Amino acid sequence: MIIDCHGHYTTAPRQLDDYRRLQVAACDCVSRGEPYPAIADPSISDDEIRETLEKAQLRIQRERGTDLTIFSPKAVGMGHHIGDAQTSARWATVCNDLIHRICGLYPTKFAGVCQLPQSPGVAPANCIPELERCVKELGFVGCNLNPDPTGGYWKDPPLHDKWWYPLYEKMVELDVPAMIHVSGSCNPHFHATGAHYINGDTTAFMQFLTSKLFQDFPTLKFVIPHGGGAVPYHWGRYRGIAQDLGLPPLQELLLENVFFDTCVYHQPGIDLLLKVIPPENILFASETVGAVRGIDPTTGHHYDDTKRYIDAATQLSAADKAKIFEGNARRVYARLQA
Amino acid sequence: MIIDCHGHYTTAPRQLDDYRRLQVAACDCVSRGEPYPAIADPSISDDEIRETLEKAQLRIQRERGTDLTIFSPKAVGMGHHIGDAQTSARWATVCNDLIHRICGLYPTKFAGVCQLPQSPGVAPANCIPELERCVKELGFVGCNLNPDPTGGYWKDPPLHDKWWYPLYEKMVELDVPAMIHVSGSCNPHFHATGAHYINGDTTAFMQFLTSKLFQDFPTLKFVIPHGGGAVPYHWGRYRGIAQDLGLPPLQELLLENVFFDTCVYHQPGIDLLLKVIPPENILFASETVGAVRGIDPTTGHHYDDTKRYIDAATQLSAADKAKIFEGNARRVYARLQA
Repeated sequence: MIIDCHGHYTTAPRQLDDYRRLQVAACDCVSRGEPYPAIADPSISDDEIRETLEKAQLRIQRERGTDLTIFSPKAVGMGHHIGDAQTSARWATVCNDLIHRICGLYPTKFAGVCQLPQSPGVAPANCIPELERCVKELGFVGCNLNPDPTGGYWKDPPLHDKWWYPLYEKMVELDVPAMIHVSGSCNPHFHATGAHYINGDTTAFMQFLTSKLFQDFPTLKFVIPHGGGAVPYHWGRYRGIAQDLGLPPLQELLLENVFFDTCVYHQPGIDLLLKVIPPENILFASETVGAVRGIDPTTGHHYDDTKRYIDAATQLSAADKAKIFEGNARRVYARLQA
Repeated sequence: MIIDCHGHYTTAPRQLDDYRRLQVAACDCVSRGEPYPAIADPSISDDEIRETLEKAQLRIQRERGTDLTIFSPKAVGMGHHIGDAQTSARWATVCNDLIHRICGLYPTKFAGVCQLPQSPGVAPANCIPELERCVKELGFVGCNLNPDPTGGYWKDPPLHDKWWYPLYEKMVELDVPAMIHVSGSCNPHFHATGAHYINGDTTAFMQFLTSKLFQDFPTLKFVIPHGGGAVPYHWGRYRGIAQDLGLPPLQELLLENVFFDTCVYHQPGIDLLLKVIPPENILFASETVGAVRGIDPTTGHHYDDTKRYIDAATQLSAADKAKIFEGNARRVYARLQA
């Protein structure tokens, strides 16, 4: 069985975008001192949901030979920097409910991961009720955690700050991991998928490296997507920085708690990832339909068809390949039952 | 001949730190409304300079078999976010004058690259007089350009903004490149050498990719250090993003203007860099004495002994190796005469 641990519902029907537009407009109303307008939940039929998936994520699963996608709302759409906690709470609920319906329609094809109702300056403890609802009532297996709800200005506390601890306690109690995943950027310096995503990954890893977070939470688990940002490419740098700081080797320091996905869109990148990161810490993923949609003219295949790169990595043993394709995902997303 | 295009004077005598401490304290005075105190320039003898280099950078050149280092003030020490334009101007002058003395003492061993007197909210045009002084009077061959003088908050305009254009015009006129190099971070999210440096590199590349900067400045040249941040590891992602945006291939779009150094501290990282980036766009560098100072227990050699990784890359032809070790540096740093 092949589990893709990183998919977003990027193909949702336009009603979802319409709802969000009204919500964002409502924020403007509030900021002008006008009352918060009532907005009806988006009305989307099961057939509409099926159609958006059949021609996209499900077609891709069939074509590429993957079985189950760990699926969450569109990351760039989370937009935690927009509006206030009330905005984020309502938006997360709407998006998560849609994921829940998808998992109900295709229980062998999708498992849910939730968007958290983060908001700048609001303590992450505020996300606990929605996390509990998604895990206990909707059967979700994890959450996406935005290390920068300020959307590119990085003004809230870093991930090792006690600010985050109540949420981590709940994650541990529920036995769910978080994928570290920024959302869109409202800072003109950062292109979302080309800079902010990758920087978020690298930044989170370094925050873990320099903190005692996993001493405080020995069973807390994070997946760093996009192949770990810059980290595997600079694995020597990170090993050396840890050593200069008098820390234990990275494997001992972090790799019980930190995992990398395979969203790296060319063979040499995947080969590097497989070479430097232990196979126990790599989870297969493609992030389809996502950041890169074209066909690589040098291969004739989609850039994001990451299964081909893993299949082509002849240095991997069958046992290690099975860990990357399935075993590690089951270990990290421990509530996964499909 | 082997040219290391990326070295900083990280071993300066303590008088330089003492001077900077007084300067930073002076900023505090000014912010309290007290007058700016007079601070004497640091008094450092030639023998003291020689001593700090003989036991560090020069010893390393001899031991590793490199010949010339393109040398600039300590990057993390630039601290553009501290004080105001006056602070940065005086600090840049002091640091650049010290580099000039080094180049005078060891003209075959060091070539100068200047620190710019950037300051948050101050137009980069303000850096032109110091750049001209360093190039025309002191014989420097380039500058370090900080894409985020706000020290981790990324609040000034991005690199493709016209805000930067007067400085670029002067760089083109003087025929000097800039190495993109952030300084220290005052944002608790970003460890300087582990996150802010690498993020700065990735961010700059993406700003170049999404802008028309090199249409406006066809001969402008930038070196992105630390192996290009995350870029070569995600080369497929960047090729795919450019393609989705309807842009020409990266080679055509950027690689007449953008170059990567080899500050990647393990063999698999260097192998990836050499595999995906054309040899014409790679400049040898080690950033010694710098971010990582220890010995890699898996090799028995210093992490930052990057020459070993290039030497071990058997796939490189002798001609390509010569480009990386010397030819490209002479092409990019066109004023280099040593």
